Amino acid sequence: MFGTQLGTAIDVGAFFIKGEFFMEIQINLDHKSYPIFLGENTIDKLQDFVSDTKKYFILTDTNIPEYLVSKVQSYCKQSTIYKVVPGEGSKSFATYKEVCEACLAYGMQRSDVLIALGGGVIGDLGGFVASSYMRGISFMSIPTTTLSQIDSSIGGKVAINLDHVKNIIGAFYHPDAVFIDFTTLDSLPKRHIQSGLVEALKAGLIHDASLYEIFKQDNYMDQLETIVYKALLVKKAVVEQDEKESGLRKTLNFGHTIGHGIEAYYDLKTYYHGECVALGMLYFLDDPTLQQQVKTILQNMHIPVDVDYDIQEVMQIIAKDKKAKQTHIDVIRVDVPGHSYIQALELSEIQQLIERSHHEK
Amino acid sequence: MFGTQLGTAIDVGAFFIKGEFFMEIQINLDHKSYPIFLGENTIDKLQDFVSDTKKYFILTDTNIPEYLVSKVQSYCKQSTIYKVVPGEGSKSFATYKEVCEACLAYGMQRSDVLIALGGGVIGDLGGFVASSYMRGISFMSIPTTTLSQIDSSIGGKVAINLDHVKNIIGAFYHPDAVFIDFTTLDSLPKRHIQSGLVEALKAGLIHDASLYEIFKQDNYMDQLETIVYKALLVKKAVVEQDEKESGLRKTLNFGHTIGHGIEAYYDLKTYYHGECVALGMLYFLDDPTLQQQVKTILQNMHIPVDVDYDIQEVMQIIAKDKKAKQTHIDVIRVDVPGHSYIQALELSEIQQLIERSHHEK
Ligand SMILES: NC(=O)c1ccc[n+]([C@@H]2O[C@H](COP(=O)([O-])OP(=O)(O)OC[C@H]3O[C@@H](n4cnc5c(N)ncnc54)[C@H](O)[C@@H]3O)[C@@H](O)[C@H]2O)c1
Ligand SMILES: NC(=O)c1ccc[n+]([C@@H]2O[C@H](COP(=O)([O-])OP(=O)(O)OC[C@H]3O[C@@H](n4cnc5c(N)ncnc54)[C@H](O)[C@@H]3O)[C@@H](O)[C@H]2O)c1
Repeated sequence: MFGTQLGTAIDVGAFFIKGEFFMEIQINLDHKSYPIFLGENTIDKLQDFVSDTKKYFILTDTNIPEYLVSKVQSYCKQSTIYKVVPGEGSKSFATYKEVCEACLAYGMQRSDVLIALGGGVIGDLGGFVASSYMRGISFMSIPTTTLSQIDSSIGGKVAINLDHVKNIIGAFYHPDAVFIDFTTLDSLPKRHIQSGLVEALKAGLIHDASLYEIFKQDNYMDQLETIVYKALLVKKAVVEQDEKESGLRKTLNFGHTIGHGIEAYYDLKTYYHGECVALGMLYFLDDPTLQQQVKTILQNMHIPVDVDYDIQEVMQIIAKDKKAKQTHIDVIRVDVPGHSYIQALELSEIQQLIERSHHEK
Repeated sequence: MFGTQLGTAIDVGAFFIKGEFFMEIQINLDHKSYPIFLGENTIDKLQDFVSDTKKYFILTDTNIPEYLVSKVQSYCKQSTIYKVVPGEGSKSFATYKEVCEACLAYGMQRSDVLIALGGGVIGDLGGFVASSYMRGISFMSIPTTTLSQIDSSIGGKVAINLDHVKNIIGAFYHPDAVFIDFTTLDSLPKRHIQSGLVEALKAGLIHDASLYEIFKQDNYMDQLETIVYKALLVKKAVVEQDEKESGLRKTLNFGHTIGHGIEAYYDLKTYYHGECVALGMLYFLDDPTLQQQVKTILQNMHIPVDVDYDIQEVMQIIAKDKKAKQTHIDVIRVDVPGHSYIQALELSEIQQLIERSHHEK
């Protein structure tokens, strides 16, 4: 029962750079603290974090607009750009090895820095490279998707996939700074924008009713910056209290158990991460009225709510998944917006929940 | 100037199991403490550390005697054995991936445990798998070579190689317990025994004159257990004071800069790690008399001291190596036995040192 117990020690500042307003959130862990900058053109803030004597390995993908890549590079005296193929497929051993080799070829030393410029894939892959190259070099993150701005760029979870299992190889490793620049979203396809926002909807449902409320408004997209900001505050509070996911942090997995199952069922290709999480959340909303309300919100967001899949197969994937612990799985449930709790369910119970929910449709 | 400043807070205990004497050393880090057991048949102590509800992934290589593997397995209710090809070649991306896949196939969960049963290769590889599988599972280590008992099994450095560069991908990750069982050395080829002891000679030279003194005695092999024990105390003191190698810990690299270079020059195949470290140490003994003394010791140990290599090529390898930082490299030097210091040298200065030493022979 964590919903009402989230810490409220918030380190936030507001600043102006070149007349533009932006915010700073500080993440404070036992062993490390680092800032997250939010606003328009926060990439410019990178200038304060680079050193002329260090090498910068800029990891990105071929979908990231060239002007962004050049802008980042323009702030680094010594740098190289490495582009991977866009998409989940790059969170592979093969690409991981390739990027490590490229770091080596560029002569990266222990004091040099990796910059992850892109979505969650780039952040997860780049973070894992940074965590393991020379047993750990610094990295900074410039998330360019709503999903990565809201969720994956903070919390220190970095990972790659193995076979069909997502995020099975990785580390807990934190960046030195995160630059959330809303202008980077200009080129992001609408479907990705919406899918990423599901993680904010999730954050609202599990821990912050006021954030959830925003999604009930037709004009929620006008409040994108507030949404990202509030979602980050939820994540900050959770991660600071339970970095290694021994308790509270599990609530962030709301919707993810089934979500990952469905994502894997579709070979990580057909539906986006957020879209699958959305489906996964619906089954674990205790109140049917709330369930209906969330469904409506998702429909407004153009998130598909009627996805077809073989329950039996998805359950098999879940059984193999990392959150599977013996016969029971910790699932996260929401009773009222802003309040979540953990429940250990048997696979069969989870299956029943899904089946019941499908019947009721 | 660290030699005389090593901490002396030593947590050591002596115990009897089934009438056999053994010692315990506790490694105390900020974030973790774990015991190292030393003695005959300390593998039996594993019984106190296993749980019937956990799965054990026993990583070993095909040279490890079957009776040892069976003994370890006999203590684990749920376990699987995974054998890799012996030798440095297994510290590769390919084997790393294979082992991760095998963990997955065996259904290892976050609470399960990897046991590394073997030499430094198994410890480094197994430790890196444990550090990254599900972002970190527990591991225990049963080192079966002098090198791994003396050196690699404690300190938390785990790694694999990439192309010709050793240990370039890895993590700082500590085991839950280390079982140093001297009976496991019975089957270890003599050359490996001697090569591994070089790391103890190193520990003596940099930080413990009394350990160095043992090597001057003809019967030093009768004192193998004392040697391992004393070497571990050096490593314990160093690692506890500087886990992440920001200062003091660098002294453990005595002999390693050139050593790694020579090892790589011979494609990691011809000479053993300890043998190469031995060569690397000789160049950095300030006192010619000491240099001659150490040479004699090495000859008694049947360590080749006149190895032929192309200095230019070895220097090129060193320049690419991870300890290379801009133009200067931190090398470790020893002025008197038990006392070491760090010096930043240019590559050209290092080359001169080697050349001068080769001339003097
Ligand atoms: N580490 C964590 O805590 C965490 C949390 C949630 C999700 N994730 C991971 O994040 C990944 C999904 O993140 P994502 O949705 O950002 O994926 P992504 O990185 O694949 O980005 C989505 C798509 O948008 C493109 N793109 C990114 N930024 C763009 C821009 N500014 N303009 C145009 N195109 C752009 C990418 O090339 C890609 O095709 C998954 O691998 C998931 O496992 C990690
Ligand atoms: N992590 C660290 O801090 C650290 C420190 C020093 C060295 N290392 C690494 O350790 C590795 C070298 O260690 P190593 O010399 O133990 O190598 P190793 O693991 O390859 O063992 C040497 C050989 O002995 C065999 N062997 C091992 N135990 C045996 C036994 N009991 N009976 C018969 N055969 C046995 C192995 O199969 C192998 O052929 C290198 O990769 C080096 O980089 C790591």
